[in-house]
Amino acid sequence: MTGFIIRRATTADAPAIWRIIGPTIRAGETYALAPDMGEGEAVAYWLGPDKETFVAVAEDGQVLGTYYIRPNQAGGGRHICNCGYMTDAAATGRGIARAMCLHSLDHAKTRGYRGMQFNFVVSSNVRAVTLWQALGFSIIGRLPLAFQHPRLGYVDALVMFQPLAKD
Amino acid sequence: MTGFIIRRATTADAPAIWRIIGPTIRAGETYALAPDMGEGEAVAYWLGPDKETFVAVAEDGQVLGTYYIRPNQAGGGRHICNCGYMTDAAATGRGIARAMCLHSLDHAKTRGYRGMQFNFVVSSNVRAVTLWQALGFSIIGRLPLAFQHPRLGYVDALVMFQPLAKD
Repeated sequence: MTGFIIRRATTADAPAIWRIIGPTIRAGETYALAPDMGEGEAVAYWLGPDKETFVAVAEDGQVLGTYYIRPNQAGGGRHICNCGYMTDAAATGRGIARAMCLHSLDHAKTRGYRGMQFNFVVSSNVRAVTLWQALGFSIIGRLPLAFQHPRLGYVDALVMFQPLAKD
Repeated sequence: MTGFIIRRATTADAPAIWRIIGPTIRAGETYALAPDMGEGEAVAYWLGPDKETFVAVAEDGQVLGTYYIRPNQAGGGRHICNCGYMTDAAATGRGIARAMCLHSLDHAKTRGYRGMQFNFVVSSNVRAVTLWQALGFSIIGRLPLAFQHPRLGYVDALVMFQPLAKD
């Protein structure tokens, strides 16, 4: 977790955010987003008004990763949050996803959220599943063949959840 | 299932749809929607461009219930659909919710969906949970205390799923 900081994203980060989320969206292997989504639409989604968005930034200013946090539901469900994380493929192995998830858990507690839910973790994304479990998430549901992977075909998606204790 | 038909909703149905969904949204007991949502916003949500919306209409033209069907996720998740159903409180017991759900399952198969997912069934809504189970849905996940019920406090929400066989 050395060599970078996590700060709030601004609209000035939009090009850097697209450089990270664009390839992941295009690949279509880990997020249930349209692979042909345009840059404008993707950045508007990631920085949407329903979300708080953060970036992980190296000492030289390079954006290495980004995440958002938002209420997972409205009304009676708004005390549970949802996050999405993406890391620069060239920066894997530096603990960026782990640091962003820990940051989001802290931030969620500050915000008063009582739980964090991931609605759709693609089961073939073993690296992510393992990391989320290491950071306290449980698999609370398995959606059978709910994701069409471009190479692997239909694979399960997982619902993962972590209650957040009040500090 | 006698005494009413199910047909596509049009914008002309908007006032009738609001008469059904408004009280349910205001009550805030069964859907994770903001209870203070305005009529315009609620109708725009229910008839949104991402959805196909239907109404159950009595022989005298009165709208008794309404449902929508939409892809539950984008990209690699768009082969699983999601639905929401609401029935006029004054018309309960006539099999309207059951008929709408059966209609939606047929429609989903016609559309080529491979499964139907309910993301957030409030566990205290026992009537709904029992009906969905009777119609082939399984509880595949339980979200602990994920819904704040206005009278009961925090209750679990359920993820329910049904694979759709190709006819």
